[in-house]
Amino acid sequence: MMEIKGLAVAEKIKADIKEKMHIISQKGIDPKLAVFRVGEREDDIAYEKRLIKNAKELGISVERILIGDCDSFEKFQHEFSTLNDDKGIHGIILFRPLKNKVWEEYAKNNINPDKDVDCMGYNNLAKPYLNKFSGILPATPSACMEILKYYNITLKGKKVSIINRSTVLGKPLGMMLLNENATVTFCHSKTENLKEITKNSDIVITGIGKAGYFDESYFNDNSVIIDVGINFDDDGMVGDVKRNMGNKVRAVTPVPGGVGIVTSSILFRNLLCNIDI
Amino acid sequence: MMEIKGLAVAEKIKADIKEKMHIISQKGIDPKLAVFRVGEREDDIAYEKRLIKNAKELGISVERILIGDCDSFEKFQHEFSTLNDDKGIHGIILFRPLKNKVWEEYAKNNINPDKDVDCMGYNNLAKPYLNKFSGILPATPSACMEILKYYNITLKGKKVSIINRSTVLGKPLGMMLLNENATVTFCHSKTENLKEITKNSDIVITGIGKAGYFDESYFNDNSVIIDVGINFDDDGMVGDVKRNMGNKVRAVTPVPGGVGIVTSSILFRNLLCNIDI
Repeated sequence: MMEIKGLAVAEKIKADIKEKMHIISQKGIDPKLAVFRVGEREDDIAYEKRLIKNAKELGISVERILIGDCDSFEKFQHEFSTLNDDKGIHGIILFRPLKNKVWEEYAKNNINPDKDVDCMGYNNLAKPYLNKFSGILPATPSACMEILKYYNITLKGKKVSIINRSTVLGKPLGMMLLNENATVTFCHSKTENLKEITKNSDIVITGIGKAGYFDESYFNDNSVIIDVGINFDDDGMVGDVKRNMGNKVRAVTPVPGGVGIVTSSILFRNLLCNIDI
Repeated sequence: MMEIKGLAVAEKIKADIKEKMHIISQKGIDPKLAVFRVGEREDDIAYEKRLIKNAKELGISVERILIGDCDSFEKFQHEFSTLNDDKGIHGIILFRPLKNKVWEEYAKNNINPDKDVDCMGYNNLAKPYLNKFSGILPATPSACMEILKYYNITLKGKKVSIINRSTVLGKPLGMMLLNENATVTFCHSKTENLKEITKNSDIVITGIGKAGYFDESYFNDNSVIIDVGINFDDDGMVGDVKRNMGNKVRAVTPVPGGVGIVTSSILFRNLLCNIDI
């Protein structure tokens, strides 16, 4: 079995970022990411800590904005548009989902696309669909593509099945794969004979959120599997694919240590991509 | 073989339009379509004539705007924004492709989405990708969906292969089919073993622009085929699928008399859909 770990891919992307940061800082620019948190959700706080740690490692400044769940919409709007307009802020990550869907919709409709490093706005979200493949792109789909590219997995003409049809993962990833001339099948919970489809694919990308759901019966000896699932069972974190698939397939990304760590480096690449050097 | 002609579907849509027109005119509103032609391309003139004829049949007014190929960008911009702002204009169809790509890009970026009945702007084009399935939708993909719906072709869980990956046909159609819980495969010129994929599909949608390319070897006895191709050979107009597929498949839309006539009725449905009744 071929190892297709995320670490080497993430390291490569980070090295590119550091190189770019070197040039940027020589020009006197201090790239800054704004992380905007509403309320005290545990997940958000953990994610915020990770982002700050990763940013620090890359020499990227972070500005934290925190408002309460019960603050007014006007306050949210004010804070958000201040970030949007501030020339010293290069990217904004707003932790979602927000309790208040009106706030979330406002942010999606109003975020400056050049700062929308997390692709929450419709503008950046729809880019791969509209054949726009430069600049800021959705992070998780980009991470999958980077892994496939890094490990020289042929895409042209190959059958790829994606078991996910969301606008944040399956759809943009499918558009990116189509752009590389793969033959792309979108599967989901209503798909009949899923096993037959995945078994007949060269590459399978799973994003269903069910711990260890896919065992060897879904694949063939030559399958390349990108596991985007992040789930937890009694043994800790696990993807959508059963652990220890051993020599039963050609390659599978581990969870943890696969797509996730690449995704976070893509966010920072997105942050820098609108800074001209 | 089951007949799945476009005529009955188009008649049904036109009947709905006439009913809505009756209510609209009682309210004193005169729905008006602007057809905007640049230059004297033969195709554009023919299409313009067809649109005017179809509009008349439905009691819909048409305003023709014509400017020359060599007119200034300012003139184009002025005419275009006048239509965009005119409350008496409910829809705009600009004949494309334009020779001048700057003009075309301007129109795509600036057309009022509520008047963009032909979905040339990114806003309406991306709607199906963003799970927005009401209001104005791309006409040809919508026509395919209407045919499948009219003839009660089951989509849920079924395998649909689309041989087209354009933003005006394949991609939006794929998004609409996914929304109906079909399992969707996008194929194209680089797809390996295309025949194996189409033969294994419940529904095949072709849009490759090659006269009579697909013969019976691409299908099975139970295939339902939507032929979006419009081509010409020695015997006249023909789709991407070979003529007279007889009893070799379950159903195939004829060309002419299939998707095309449904598409033109969808444009007028789009025109009325932002008029509240």
